[in-house]
Amino acid sequence: MRLLTFTTSATGATGATERLGVEADGLVLDLAVLADHAGVRIPHDLLSFVQAGPAAEEAARRLLAADPAGPLAGAVHRLEDVTLRAPLRPGKIIGVGLNYIEHVEESSRSLDTDKDLPPRPVLFGKPATAVTGPGQPILHNADLTTQLDWECELAVVIGRTAFRVSEEEAYDHIFGFGILNDISARDQRRSGQWFFSKGQDSYAPFGPVIVTRDEIRDPMALDLSLRVNGVTKQKSNTRHMLFPIARLIADISSGMTLEPGDVIATGSPSGVGAGMVPPEFLHPGDTVEATVEGIGTLTNPVVDAR
Amino acid sequence: MRLLTFTTSATGATGATERLGVEADGLVLDLAVLADHAGVRIPHDLLSFVQAGPAAEEAARRLLAADPAGPLAGAVHRLEDVTLRAPLRPGKIIGVGLNYIEHVEESSRSLDTDKDLPPRPVLFGKPATAVTGPGQPILHNADLTTQLDWECELAVVIGRTAFRVSEEEAYDHIFGFGILNDISARDQRRSGQWFFSKGQDSYAPFGPVIVTRDEIRDPMALDLSLRVNGVTKQKSNTRHMLFPIARLIADISSGMTLEPGDVIATGSPSGVGAGMVPPEFLHPGDTVEATVEGIGTLTNPVVDAR
Repeated sequence: MRLLTFTTSATGATGATERLGVEADGLVLDLAVLADHAGVRIPHDLLSFVQAGPAAEEAARRLLAADPAGPLAGAVHRLEDVTLRAPLRPGKIIGVGLNYIEHVEESSRSLDTDKDLPPRPVLFGKPATAVTGPGQPILHNADLTTQLDWECELAVVIGRTAFRVSEEEAYDHIFGFGILNDISARDQRRSGQWFFSKGQDSYAPFGPVIVTRDEIRDPMALDLSLRVNGVTKQKSNTRHMLFPIARLIADISSGMTLEPGDVIATGSPSGVGAGMVPPEFLHPGDTVEATVEGIGTLTNPVVDAR
Repeated sequence: MRLLTFTTSATGATGATERLGVEADGLVLDLAVLADHAGVRIPHDLLSFVQAGPAAEEAARRLLAADPAGPLAGAVHRLEDVTLRAPLRPGKIIGVGLNYIEHVEESSRSLDTDKDLPPRPVLFGKPATAVTGPGQPILHNADLTTQLDWECELAVVIGRTAFRVSEEEAYDHIFGFGILNDISARDQRRSGQWFFSKGQDSYAPFGPVIVTRDEIRDPMALDLSLRVNGVTKQKSNTRHMLFPIARLIADISSGMTLEPGDVIATGSPSGVGAGMVPPEFLHPGDTVEATVEGIGTLTNPVVDAR
C-alpha cells in the first residue's frame, strides 16, 4: 500500500482536517470513509495506523479489496485534487551521516568531517518539529544561514518496537519507506554538533507517501536522486550505503528503543551543495525534488522566511 | 506548585496507571481525585496539563486552595508511599553543551572539544525514549561503553509555544523547572556527534518534580550539585552559565519551534567523570544524586544491563 495523509480543498487546505488515504492508480482513497461504510474501525491518522500494527494494515487491505455496490461519496479523490501533508509526525528522527562512500570524501573536502570511512554509523537527531510535507516550503532565513543545503535520503519508518534486534530480525521491525530531504544550514553547526544545523523548522521535508515494506522488493537497490530547479545534483543507488538498513537498525537498537512511527533517515549520496566546486546552496525561489525509486518524488519550494 | 507523576503501590508499581500529583509538605495530592470531587475537569497527565496552559494551572491552584469538608479517599498520600515517575515525556529534549565556563576547559582537556568558549550555544538532541524517572535505573551496558558519565543540569520545561521570541519575552514561555541528568557514554561519540553517546535509553533521568516558574525566584542563581555514592563530584551555581536561559530560548527559537512540554537541558558545570584525573566513570552498583536548589534531588542507581 502507498499510504498518505491528505486534506481536501472541500474543507479548505489550511487548517483542514488531515485524513488517512491510500494512493492507487492516480486516485486517493479515504480509508476512514471506506471503514465507516463497511462498519470497520480503523485508526484515522497514519501514526496511529502504524502504531496499531498488522491488524490495521490487514483491515485496510480488506477494505481496498472489497468492491462497494456503488461509488461512495467522499471515498475517492483524484490525486491532483488533494493536498498531501507529511505522512506522520515521528516520535524521533534519527539521521545517519556519512553513509555513502563518495559523500564521505566530498564532506571531508568541503566540511569538517574526517576523510576516513566511519567505523560505526554516525548518528544524529532531528526533532519532529522539523518535519514538513510535500509541497510545503523549506524556510530560508538569511539572518541565520547563507548555506542552506539538500540531502536526498531513503527514510525507513519503524513499525514494531525494536530494542536490541539482530540484523536478521531488523526487517521485521520496518513498517515501510518514504523520502526524507535532510536539509542543513551548514553554517549553523555548533562546535561540530549538527542538531541546530539540521533541526530547524521545515528542515525535514518528508513524504510524499509511505510505501509498505511488502511493496519494496529490495530497499538496498533503489535509485535515488535530487534535482534543484530541474538540474540533477544527486544520483545514486541505496546499494552504495556504507551501513545497510539492517545494520543501522541493529546498531541503533543496541542502545536506543525504536518505536512505531520513528524514522531513520539512512544518509545521503554525494552531490550536496557544500561539495560542489564552487559550493552551491539553496535560495528563495528554488525548487527541490527528491526522488526514490518505488516511492515517488518529494517536491518543496524554498521560500524567504525572514 | 511542585508537580509530579506518580504511581501507588495500591495499584502495583509496575504497569500501574500514572497519576498527576502535587507535592506539598511531604504529601502528594492526587489532582484527578480532587478534581473529580469538585466536579472540575483537569488533564490527568502532566504533559496534557502543561499543554492546557494557564487555565489548567489556575484550576489546580483553586483545587489546592479549597478545603474539602472531610478527608477524600485516595486524594492524599505520604511522599514515601508513592513511586515517582518521570514527570512527563517531552516532545523534544534540547541539550546545551559546554555552557559552564569551567566545564569548557575541562572538556577540552579530556574530550575532543575546543578550548575556546563557544560563540553560540552548542545544541544537541536527546530523544524522548532516553527519559527515565527518579529511582529508575541508569542502564550500564559494558558491551557498548566503559565510559558512562554524569552531568547535573537544570531543566527548563516549556509552557507556551515559542518561535522567534526575544530574550525579554523568553520567560513567558517557561512552564517550570526540573532536573535532568545528562548521561553520556563518552566512547559512543560518532565522528564527533553526541546523539548516540547521549541518547540511549535511560540516559535522561528527569524529575523528581517540575516546579512551576512562579516558585523559583531566580533560575539564574540556583546551586546545583551531583554526588556519586555520596561523594560530591559537581558543585556550582546556575549563575555560571555561559548562555543564560533567556538567551538559550531566544537562540533556539530563532530557528526551531519550542512546544509545551519540550525540555531544554541547560548544560552542566565542571566535575564530570571524563574530566577527573584519572577519569572516573559510572559502574553497576553506583548511585547518582543530582540536586538543584529549590527543586530537589534526582537519585538513580546504575545497573548492569547487558
